[in-house]
Amino acid sequence: MIERYPTKKIYVGDVAVGGDAPISTQSMTYSNTHDVATTVEQIKRLHFAGADIVRVAVPDMQDALALKSIKEQISLPLIADIHFNYKLALIAAESVDCIRFNPGNISDKGKIREIVKACQERSIPVRIGVNAGSLEKEFDNKYGPTPEAMVASAEYNIKYLEDLGFTDIKVSLKASDVQRTVEAYRMLRPKNNYPFHLGVTEAGTIFHATVKSAIGLGTLLLEGIGDTMRVSITGELEEEIKVAKAILKDSGAMPDGLNIISCPTCGRIEADLVTAVAEIEKRTAHIKTPLDVSVMGCVVNAIGEAAHADVAIAYGKGKGLVMVKGDVVANLDESELVDRFVSEVEEMAAKTEK
Amino acid sequence: MIERYPTKKIYVGDVAVGGDAPISTQSMTYSNTHDVATTVEQIKRLHFAGADIVRVAVPDMQDALALKSIKEQISLPLIADIHFNYKLALIAAESVDCIRFNPGNISDKGKIREIVKACQERSIPVRIGVNAGSLEKEFDNKYGPTPEAMVASAEYNIKYLEDLGFTDIKVSLKASDVQRTVEAYRMLRPKNNYPFHLGVTEAGTIFHATVKSAIGLGTLLLEGIGDTMRVSITGELEEEIKVAKAILKDSGAMPDGLNIISCPTCGRIEADLVTAVAEIEKRTAHIKTPLDVSVMGCVVNAIGEAAHADVAIAYGKGKGLVMVKGDVVANLDESELVDRFVSEVEEMAAKTEK
Repeated sequence: MIERYPTKKIYVGDVAVGGDAPISTQSMTYSNTHDVATTVEQIKRLHFAGADIVRVAVPDMQDALALKSIKEQISLPLIADIHFNYKLALIAAESVDCIRFNPGNISDKGKIREIVKACQERSIPVRIGVNAGSLEKEFDNKYGPTPEAMVASAEYNIKYLEDLGFTDIKVSLKASDVQRTVEAYRMLRPKNNYPFHLGVTEAGTIFHATVKSAIGLGTLLLEGIGDTMRVSITGELEEEIKVAKAILKDSGAMPDGLNIISCPTCGRIEADLVTAVAEIEKRTAHIKTPLDVSVMGCVVNAIGEAAHADVAIAYGKGKGLVMVKGDVVANLDESELVDRFVSEVEEMAAKTEK
Repeated sequence: MIERYPTKKIYVGDVAVGGDAPISTQSMTYSNTHDVATTVEQIKRLHFAGADIVRVAVPDMQDALALKSIKEQISLPLIADIHFNYKLALIAAESVDCIRFNPGNISDKGKIREIVKACQERSIPVRIGVNAGSLEKEFDNKYGPTPEAMVASAEYNIKYLEDLGFTDIKVSLKASDVQRTVEAYRMLRPKNNYPFHLGVTEAGTIFHATVKSAIGLGTLLLEGIGDTMRVSITGELEEEIKVAKAILKDSGAMPDGLNIISCPTCGRIEADLVTAVAEIEKRTAHIKTPLDVSVMGCVVNAIGEAAHADVAIAYGKGKGLVMVKGDVVANLDESELVDRFVSEVEEMAAKTEK
């Protein structure tokens, strides 16, 4: 198991972030926020897709003023994303569960103090959202758009909020490439215990965004870094949540449902494994109990994997074994294996949930 | 840039592995290897998809005997994958460019000596291919299927090959989950300088295999570990190469063509960014010159990203800027931006290639 870095627990609405809270996933709507009906519809889509928290852009006053009505129509915690104009944060704070501000474009101390005061009054947290593409001039000039500059910006702003007596903080340090992102989070992690919001920003369209985010966020999660996360995709809302959940599951940070171990293509395979595994994925998609299962096409690793799997199939020529916790429970024709496997999985999931 | 762990350079056919050689990608056919026509066809598909090396399973003598004819019909370096029966390796060595053996199921010292002798005579390397699912009994009993056991198996077999005067070695340490895989490679890396073949084995179907492999292989590549790699997918041949190349590119280990930085969904976006980026990806897919480009939908990070991008678009309302190396070169209607951007990219790629 991964040992998580011990962070302070804060609350975004009723969702805990940090400490022993599950690592939460979040995304953003792409409607014009002041188009309340469309924004609410997109938030509901994200909720259905499994998002824990949602964020909306607030570029104008009409967007800030729409937040109250949006909040009344949704149940997900709501974060307002604020750039340039601190006054939007003051209005937003009246309705939302968290304010994210970008210290790269709101760097005036008096303005930040006003934002903090508004959040203090409503007991909502602040995300200090540092972005390599929009750093404060002083840090950009001193270090360039580097991890050092991102960390310096975060530390400077954390210190300022602490000096104001405000510690309801989470922090993000996003760059548009994996290396700077990973280095920045690693560098800042030992310096405080605030929860971290992870993300590789502007990661591109679905395929490369999936790969970049899996490398960057996965590397950090394996080190116990990260309390909430957003996968950035130039694409559809649901995709961001699907990829985020997969990174949490496949890194081992948050086991969820079946972890399917199945052979790659190879000349030793004795069955139509691709079809069998696709059918298994479909028929077990509803199962939430974390189970390790293996579906293997030949003898080389089948028995070794099955020995440590909760449920397994080991294919041979035209037939195969179903195994439970390393014991053979059935020796069947190929056509019967998937049915038996699925019923064993369902039985074990039902038992485990009790 | 990532500093690679300094490894010994070996040759698989004419492809260098280790040292300063590019990190190569490989895959396996799933035909019955003795079906020469189908095997050759699959190898040619992999070649076309960009694989550097190909491996074939050799479960039976008829497969070993088919290798000569296969080798005559292909130009990719060919590796024979040997389990259980060392005699297959002796026949295979006469035709192929490398032998992979699994010490978990060929552990008799006399048999390994015969394999090494055959490879020495033909001056071809050996991959010691350790798999958590099929460890030697002694290591499995002592440690369970852990990184410690995988590393102990690799070290034992490396030592034995070295004692025979054979150092034309590469090593793999695959487990079916990310954490064990990463830990095993990390643990063995400082103990020798042989090139490493990376892989998370039996990673499942395309989506989760992509995420698992990106996390596992990406984490290692960021640390400079890895000289050749295979992404294991229960799926089609071309997919493995596509994902492997993406992991190399998106980790920053091997820049290749356009690295596209583009915004995720957000209520600030002023244009149909998804369509624009998809068109750009399509129209620039042929470019091999590594270029950083950014395609951004609003002002927050657009200028910061553009300042460090080779070519960039910054969208505003109905129009936008095209920027080259941080300088604005055109201020155009939205409909003209992609055309201009693509022509700037093509021009820069043509210049860089000279």
